Amino acid sequence: MAVNIQRFRDYLAVDGVRLGVAQAGVRYANRDDLVIMELAEGSRCAGVFTRNAFCAAPVVLCRQHLQADQPRYLLINTGNANAGMGQQGDADALASCQLLASQTQASPQQVLPFSTGVIGEPLNMAAFERGIPLALADLRADNWDRAAAGIMTTDTVPKGASREVMIAGQPVRITGISKGSGMIKPDMATMLGFIATDAEVSEAILQRWCKQLADASFNRITIDGDTSTNDCCMLIATGRSGVVIDDEQSPAADALFSELQQVFQQLAQAIVRDGEGATKFVTLQVNGAAKPQEALDVAYTVAHSPLVKTAMYASDANWGRILAAVGRAGLQDLQLDQVQIYLDDVQIVENGGRCASYTEQAGAAVLAQSEFCVRIELGRGECSDTLWTSDLSHEYVSINADYRS
Amino acid sequence: MAVNIQRFRDYLAVDGVRLGVAQAGVRYANRDDLVIMELAEGSRCAGVFTRNAFCAAPVVLCRQHLQADQPRYLLINTGNANAGMGQQGDADALASCQLLASQTQASPQQVLPFSTGVIGEPLNMAAFERGIPLALADLRADNWDRAAAGIMTTDTVPKGASREVMIAGQPVRITGISKGSGMIKPDMATMLGFIATDAEVSEAILQRWCKQLADASFNRITIDGDTSTNDCCMLIATGRSGVVIDDEQSPAADALFSELQQVFQQLAQAIVRDGEGATKFVTLQVNGAAKPQEALDVAYTVAHSPLVKTAMYASDANWGRILAAVGRAGLQDLQLDQVQIYLDDVQIVENGGRCASYTEQAGAAVLAQSEFCVRIELGRGECSDTLWTSDLSHEYVSINADYRS
Repeated sequence: MAVNIQRFRDYLAVDGVRLGVAQAGVRYANRDDLVIMELAEGSRCAGVFTRNAFCAAPVVLCRQHLQADQPRYLLINTGNANAGMGQQGDADALASCQLLASQTQASPQQVLPFSTGVIGEPLNMAAFERGIPLALADLRADNWDRAAAGIMTTDTVPKGASREVMIAGQPVRITGISKGSGMIKPDMATMLGFIATDAEVSEAILQRWCKQLADASFNRITIDGDTSTNDCCMLIATGRSGVVIDDEQSPAADALFSELQQVFQQLAQAIVRDGEGATKFVTLQVNGAAKPQEALDVAYTVAHSPLVKTAMYASDANWGRILAAVGRAGLQDLQLDQVQIYLDDVQIVENGGRCASYTEQAGAAVLAQSEFCVRIELGRGECSDTLWTSDLSHEYVSINADYRS
Repeated sequence: MAVNIQRFRDYLAVDGVRLGVAQAGVRYANRDDLVIMELAEGSRCAGVFTRNAFCAAPVVLCRQHLQADQPRYLLINTGNANAGMGQQGDADALASCQLLASQTQASPQQVLPFSTGVIGEPLNMAAFERGIPLALADLRADNWDRAAAGIMTTDTVPKGASREVMIAGQPVRITGISKGSGMIKPDMATMLGFIATDAEVSEAILQRWCKQLADASFNRITIDGDTSTNDCCMLIATGRSGVVIDDEQSPAADALFSELQQVFQQLAQAIVRDGEGATKFVTLQVNGAAKPQEALDVAYTVAHSPLVKTAMYASDANWGRILAAVGRAGLQDLQLDQVQIYLDDVQIVENGGRCASYTEQAGAAVLAQSEFCVRIELGRGECSDTLWTSDLSHEYVSINADYRS
């Protein structure tokens, strides 16, 4: 199941980025499972990574390499997450970088490794030996579409976004791919996002932006509240367009940031739309919080409530479940009679109780749609937050339970 | 579905407590839905209540009455939670207490109201007018079994526990009933627990014990992480056995506390066993935490992970999902290589990675059982906690989604 998502095909090449895809046989045969992204010399790269304390070996190494040198290659495999493997995992991650470096001009530190797939099994190094030369031979600027498919695990749709915008009179391109919420026994959903622009962006701005953009996109989606050991999001600036962003307050910076935000959100939302068992795409908007964290706490508590999620699956405008989730979000001195809740434009809760004008038909009509917004007004202050989530369906249980047997 | 639970039938009457049950027609006809517990004069009563900020009208009133006077009656209805109804809800809760008081020697403040059932619909006061005299006429000391059934919503089994113990050479009895995790459109699961002893326990000790006992029982179970607006647990001491507990450090106090703990845990675990869609009864034990809260945070994060819960449903010893849940529990400076995880006696994670001696067959054999223990050793300190949970099954989704349509 997937909610209003089709395979993206209108990729724009980004000058300075080439991509190669190979069938390395990491876990399965006859399947694209190894992707190399080559970055032109001088490209800058920023990343945000899983906050899970058990981060996988490639995540640890990727962070080290990113600090040590300017990356020239991203090496991405599916089929095996190289997680929970102790020192063997560390050694294998490094060996994969060395393998790629030995066949290029790059040093091992200039290779960033990314893995997604099964946890707790040793990386198949023979597959890397086989796949890396094939992927290098395949490097092309117009390979984004195949790369998007090549990083999938059990995603049902390759995910991409691409934009061109005029900045300071010059065209700047942004193209990105992401994957997420697939599941392979005994794997967990790993989110990966790779976004490249041909603008030149200073190191400090790029890192700040990557964090800000991920916080408002990949860090604002939730399917089941579980955080993978392998989540990564990378923002790449090749500098080849000639547009230079070195002042964060400039109109050019504003323009690029805004375009990047569109791409980040489109890629992040695509993960929810293709979420495991998703039949609904739900925007959760919380307004009127006294502090930013309050808005986020309420949004996550509602988004993670199995009772709310099953009600959404059933197109059941069960305002009592939403209200109860708000009530247990841990807000100090929450004034019940200030709380208003809306489904799109239909008010369901007024001053902490059922809205007088509310009819079950009106609520059910909103929830019958495949996309809708739940808006919660707390009436405590000026802070807001928004996140995107999916429902909890029979299919979710099947994907995560039955596939094993 | 229910896991290893049968209707409890061996209730011992508790001197000083009589129970009456009636078919009041609160929501459905021909169904016991109103229960009155009459407490002998001088009985003491302590309670713990939902921490949900949106607590229902009867919960608010119950707390007030408990502070104002010594209770003589508990008035419990199913079919309607009287939650989310604003001032009308407050007025109806009070009116129900007044109705009962007017037919007895008690004042309205001596009546404690409890409601469970549908949210957001006005209480059917005619049902109370009809049911209260019927329940009063039915008051008997040996009515615990019918009362346990009379407080159910969609529980599949009435839940009870009963013990007699010799304390200071005299027999003391403890009997309790509970309900929970039923679901009526558009209701949420409310947990109710009523436990009575004929010992005399001083006010201060009773209140402290009620909190401590609930914390180690009803507050250590989780089915889906949602907290009802109506949860209540009451501990009653009638004092009729002649055994007096006024020193918490005495052997008599130890003996009674220990027996009460058995009853509280049996009643709480019965709720998990009868949990919505439960096919597994899982004990989650976390040891070696640096602080008590750490142990609890890890236990809840694992217990609430949909990925862990679906793996349990599938009898899939998916240690990567458990490890990842531990990793995102928010512990500062968690040392991965200190973490050990066991399924019963089978070690699955050793020093943060898959245990060398682990075989999938051994793990699957543990999870094939209807009951097992997941033990997580953090290796950071001396603090521990234990909670009980169930798996996430297709039936859970059906109960919470499909029943509406």
